[in-house]
Amino acid sequence: MSEFEWIDRYLKPLVRSSSAQGLNNDVAELGRGASGPLIVTLDTLVSGIHFLADDPLETVAQKLVRVNVSDILCKGAVPREALLSIAFPRHFDEADFEMFCHGLDGDLGAWNIDLLGGDTVATDGPLTLSLTLTGACVARGPVLRSSANPGDSLIVSGEIGHGVLGLEDARQGRDSDHANMYRTPRLAPLAAAELVARYASASIDVSDGLLSDAGHIARQSSQSIHIALERVPLAKPVETLNQVLPLVTGGDDYQILMTVRPEDLSACQKAASQIDYPFTVIGEVRTGEGLSLSFHDEPVPVPDRPGFSH
Amino acid sequence: MSEFEWIDRYLKPLVRSSSAQGLNNDVAELGRGASGPLIVTLDTLVSGIHFLADDPLETVAQKLVRVNVSDILCKGAVPREALLSIAFPRHFDEADFEMFCHGLDGDLGAWNIDLLGGDTVATDGPLTLSLTLTGACVARGPVLRSSANPGDSLIVSGEIGHGVLGLEDARQGRDSDHANMYRTPRLAPLAAAELVARYASASIDVSDGLLSDAGHIARQSSQSIHIALERVPLAKPVETLNQVLPLVTGGDDYQILMTVRPEDLSACQKAASQIDYPFTVIGEVRTGEGLSLSFHDEPVPVPDRPGFSH
Repeated sequence: MSEFEWIDRYLKPLVRSSSAQGLNNDVAELGRGASGPLIVTLDTLVSGIHFLADDPLETVAQKLVRVNVSDILCKGAVPREALLSIAFPRHFDEADFEMFCHGLDGDLGAWNIDLLGGDTVATDGPLTLSLTLTGACVARGPVLRSSANPGDSLIVSGEIGHGVLGLEDARQGRDSDHANMYRTPRLAPLAAAELVARYASASIDVSDGLLSDAGHIARQSSQSIHIALERVPLAKPVETLNQVLPLVTGGDDYQILMTVRPEDLSACQKAASQIDYPFTVIGEVRTGEGLSLSFHDEPVPVPDRPGFSH
Repeated sequence: MSEFEWIDRYLKPLVRSSSAQGLNNDVAELGRGASGPLIVTLDTLVSGIHFLADDPLETVAQKLVRVNVSDILCKGAVPREALLSIAFPRHFDEADFEMFCHGLDGDLGAWNIDLLGGDTVATDGPLTLSLTLTGACVARGPVLRSSANPGDSLIVSGEIGHGVLGLEDARQGRDSDHANMYRTPRLAPLAAAELVARYASASIDVSDGLLSDAGHIARQSSQSIHIALERVPLAKPVETLNQVLPLVTGGDDYQILMTVRPEDLSACQKAASQIDYPFTVIGEVRTGEGLSLSFHDEPVPVPDRPGFSH
């Protein structure tokens, strides 16, 4: 049995509150804020697993913030307040700690996040970081994964594939834009929260791989999702299907994937064009189940492994 | 420079929100709940540091919940919602996971906590657990550490010293009540939240050692705190000062230490007597600074090391 099955069998039954949405959303509701629902997410990063052991501590802090911000933005909310857990290894020195805090400071500021507190402990193991991040829903919210309807368009933010290309470059010691974006994911800006809140019928954060995460929307909405692979904005120019597939099944992209009703599509696209960040229609929701893929109108079998798990 | 100095120098300056209270309280405010302020705390436990590597996973889960509940209760609040981060080592198996979840389930239920979500990851290091716990203030609140006044009485809940005695017993493989209470701290019941909210002028959670934590109230309130050591309810009967000192400077007690104004003392003691848990007056707040100690009316020098840090 895999750890995912352990979670399903032993941990999920402990989650009984309806505001947790049965662990089937990127976030949980924390109760009502002054201006709408308050949501919360938590992501944990372990050195050597979620980032490379020799990544600069400054970018590690940025990645910690951004993987959590990504969960908040994709639900139509803006980040608010954070708590930080740091378990730092014995070899950590003052310069490491300072560099980590420097990266943290910049990203907390950039995303307008108040750090409220947390816990700092020593460990005999690797650097282990956990951020709890709340978000304020911009309007109605949080947008679910389970509410896509046949006929909705499928839209993705940014470019897909920097994560998987950057991991390889970083592992090989190659300095590249991909490596930089693996270490410090480039997210959609805060304005994307309002776009999602206004126009998304369903949404998810692309973190495990585009196909895998699209599959979550399909399964949780009890619909099928079709993706025209040649339309997916990719991290590098490619020509063949075999070049496309690794990019749409790799992890660490941290982009927004959302579905938009036909009657909202043109308003959504107009609003998206006001944001200095790409949003691209790559497919649609259909009746049925699971994923269906095409490449230049030719059907493509769904890969056995649609995503990446750490 | 110690890790505490790193935190003061690099991390604390990043905490700018007034609701964080400059990291100088056990909790931060998270915004207004329906019935009063919502507070939040986060504690991280690492195997081999905050619990013994061979402690049963069931009690490890209980300890994780209780160290956080203790922070909430001592501020005059009841626990509400939790997010859990688990980084589990490669040797963890299904039975371990099941046992951990079993302990977690019992304690979440006992404290009426809704588990909202979290993150489960693998690690090459030791089991590393982090719980983010919110609490709803029962009335006004949260009670601060910094608001004790000269003339206030000092009251502690439960018994002091089980943590330090239990750690020694558990390390030696001795089965004892102390060892059980080291692994699964016995906290004041939920009714204590209302006692604190109604009557405490200042409060703290006794986790690093009674003297150390009393010192925090003294320093943050800019007053002196006097403790009559023979009045402290201890985990075992002792006769000499040398037997008392290790118990009042050891960690892992997870009791409530609060100050109560003279005009509230008799009402507080009457209310405390309705709770099936001991609350004992052990000293008072005085003008001045720092701690002062006595044992059967003889002055006692404050130990160089008033508490325990992991």
